[in-house]
Amino acid sequence: MTSARPIYRANVLVIGAGFAGIRVCQGLRHVGVNVALVDRNNYHVFQPLLYQVATAALSPADIAFPIRRIFRRHKNIECVLANVDKIDLVRKCVCANEQEIDFDYLVIAAGATHSYFGQDQWGPMAPGLKTIDDAIAIRRRILLAYEEAENEMDEESRKAKLTFVVVGGGPTGVELAGSLRQIAVEEISKDYHNIDTKTARVILIDANERVLKSFHPKLSARAEKDLKKLGVEVLLNGRVTHIDENGVKIGDMRVEANNVFWAAGVSAAPIARTLGVELDRAGRVKVNPDLSIPGHPNVFVAGDLASVIDPRTNEPVPGLAPAAMQMGVHVAKIIRQEIQSGVRPEHRIPFKYFDKGTMATIGTTRAIADIWGWKFTGFIAWLMWSLVHVMFLVSFRSKLLVMLNWVFTYMFHSSGARLITGEFKPRIRRFRDVTPRQSADPAA
Amino acid sequence: MTSARPIYRANVLVIGAGFAGIRVCQGLRHVGVNVALVDRNNYHVFQPLLYQVATAALSPADIAFPIRRIFRRHKNIECVLANVDKIDLVRKCVCANEQEIDFDYLVIAAGATHSYFGQDQWGPMAPGLKTIDDAIAIRRRILLAYEEAENEMDEESRKAKLTFVVVGGGPTGVELAGSLRQIAVEEISKDYHNIDTKTARVILIDANERVLKSFHPKLSARAEKDLKKLGVEVLLNGRVTHIDENGVKIGDMRVEANNVFWAAGVSAAPIARTLGVELDRAGRVKVNPDLSIPGHPNVFVAGDLASVIDPRTNEPVPGLAPAAMQMGVHVAKIIRQEIQSGVRPEHRIPFKYFDKGTMATIGTTRAIADIWGWKFTGFIAWLMWSLVHVMFLVSFRSKLLVMLNWVFTYMFHSSGARLITGEFKPRIRRFRDVTPRQSADPAA
Repeated sequence: MTSARPIYRANVLVIGAGFAGIRVCQGLRHVGVNVALVDRNNYHVFQPLLYQVATAALSPADIAFPIRRIFRRHKNIECVLANVDKIDLVRKCVCANEQEIDFDYLVIAAGATHSYFGQDQWGPMAPGLKTIDDAIAIRRRILLAYEEAENEMDEESRKAKLTFVVVGGGPTGVELAGSLRQIAVEEISKDYHNIDTKTARVILIDANERVLKSFHPKLSARAEKDLKKLGVEVLLNGRVTHIDENGVKIGDMRVEANNVFWAAGVSAAPIARTLGVELDRAGRVKVNPDLSIPGHPNVFVAGDLASVIDPRTNEPVPGLAPAAMQMGVHVAKIIRQEIQSGVRPEHRIPFKYFDKGTMATIGTTRAIADIWGWKFTGFIAWLMWSLVHVMFLVSFRSKLLVMLNWVFTYMFHSSGARLITGEFKPRIRRFRDVTPRQSADPAA
Repeated sequence: MTSARPIYRANVLVIGAGFAGIRVCQGLRHVGVNVALVDRNNYHVFQPLLYQVATAALSPADIAFPIRRIFRRHKNIECVLANVDKIDLVRKCVCANEQEIDFDYLVIAAGATHSYFGQDQWGPMAPGLKTIDDAIAIRRRILLAYEEAENEMDEESRKAKLTFVVVGGGPTGVELAGSLRQIAVEEISKDYHNIDTKTARVILIDANERVLKSFHPKLSARAEKDLKKLGVEVLLNGRVTHIDENGVKIGDMRVEANNVFWAAGVSAAPIARTLGVELDRAGRVKVNPDLSIPGHPNVFVAGDLASVIDPRTNEPVPGLAPAAMQMGVHVAKIIRQEIQSGVRPEHRIPFKYFDKGTMATIGTTRAIADIWGWKFTGFIAWLMWSLVHVMFLVSFRSKLLVMLNWVFTYMFHSSGARLITGEFKPRIRRFRDVTPRQSADPAA
């Protein structure tokens, strides 16, 4: 069969190779169906460690794995590198790279992006952290800030260059802020001879009355204490009202800062808007208890894009990696049962989120963890955090390399990947005026 | 002292943080002079392993080291992240980032770039490999070629996407060609289900009658044999007459290929042309035996930018890493002696190149080496090559990580960094027509 416009046909089409999408495919790898996994990148990212790429502790390849590699032994899983432009639920097809892909089952696991609460003009000034390319851009920005400060003669400008503002006190914001201080204090303080990097200000702004509000108040308080011990200025009940290239306004207070990072709003991937179905306030798809879209039993949403209430707690399922993985497993199971055993859609079981606990790190050797109601803090929590995160990395190679990198970073304060790559133009125009210690002219 | 346009003043100004520039600074770190090291990047690259970044075996951070880190204990060495726009030998100043830097001594170690023999329009179609950003771009191109081929339905187009042409049979060309075949045969062959990556053609074109012409003919012959064993098509006496997006012309023969890489011409950094002094045919600066520029005893050229005849062999000193390092050491010694002991310029000793031997790898476990006239080939040579290269990496961290990466790459055929990063648009428009193995419609 040859047609002028070949159409790819998949039994199961999965959009997004994040934690949810990967789990769906893993659950279907031994089932006799064609699965197409579409992602705009050729790799799966271990998002919980993305902030370590942004802060130069790890290299991108340490936490990103070629998707094809993961499924290389499973010939029924086809990896497609493409941007999904549109999903047509009526015609049961997806438009990707100007081409149509038909499906029997569709799993939308396109995740989330940052949201600037309607202030999209803040985007270029306050980059967020969702992708490897975001992380490389933030890394470039952090490292350039120090380079520029080193050569800045004007006191006020230098201070602004050495001021880092992180908007949003969730796990990403806390981890980013902690690492930013750690870099300034431990890792690069000896590398710059004209500035004292330890004077770098890191300001963490949160709109709530405590950081990490999804955690128990006791753990939030401990995290705040640990952050302050590191030298992070924690600004609570603070609402950002303006961002420009030289600073931010929090309420009426202006802070001069050349480096603003956005870890506040999360909104669903824009593709959800092309579905024509009911979305929640954050743009996520409201799904049935089995994770299918109402009226479309063969279309599921999994991961951060799904808005679903846990039937046991009556709480919304949080946008966390473990929840995404569990949703992926759940969807794969439903599809498997219907295909292999002919289970009918009306007999599907609802998705139940199993909360294994949550964790967040503060700087390099501290963390907080809440595991089945048990609360851990400090170094013990950090050890647990490290073990869990290494354990979930995809390959043995990454496990080993990430651990080794941490040994170097934490024990020898030698961070791994302090490279400014990609396009950049250093705004270093004024060099310091250095009076020679000794005249040395060979022609004299 | 504040002036409207502050001027940075250095006793010794070094341009370029390659092998030569780094050695100059290392030789001056305990001398009481201000040294300014200017580079457009914040890192020093271990160039001999750059091809391994381009072929996804290593991450950029494995072979690139922050310059500041190298000199963090030496407060007399100032690292300046800047582009050098112009060198004014008469006024004794350098213009970098629109700012002037004065000097007593100047060391120009700006290295080389690729030259397209006057065919600069070939640049975008046939990228060369000199920087980390080049390596990332080439990596992107190689990985995208396979992604596109996997989804290409037209036989001829698919063949063109799976054809890699490397122009230039020097060490870089040979290493790149060998690695390209290795990837196709060993590392990714299982990852693509619709194409047989082992059918990928790698064509190495050289204008001479043998590859690696700087080596002994016996070693060239062995390298050619090893390349052919790997499946590389070696095309000797071949002159590229045309390159476009879809292929190259070698003499009158056209080869359809979507991936052409340039490892042929090397030309001096363009900054040399602003000097107004005598250059050789490749644009390198003809220097005195002491490496200073004729008529400018306080200005030295070191590394690939210097055109100098070895007084012992009457041969030009080759553009190799060991030669660059030795030149750096030599220049540092002269400056040190004149500053510390008041040795006068007329008593300078000439630079002598000490040839420790040369090596090149072919694929993953073979190499050739010529060490003091002793010739080594095959696995033994490769072991020597590995040891020498790991030994010269700047930090213990890199030594360990590079070795571990090699273990994974060579023993488990799992290359480290197969990421497509940066801006790209996959030209994947036509998906394969996959007939579903089993119909599976839940609504049926």
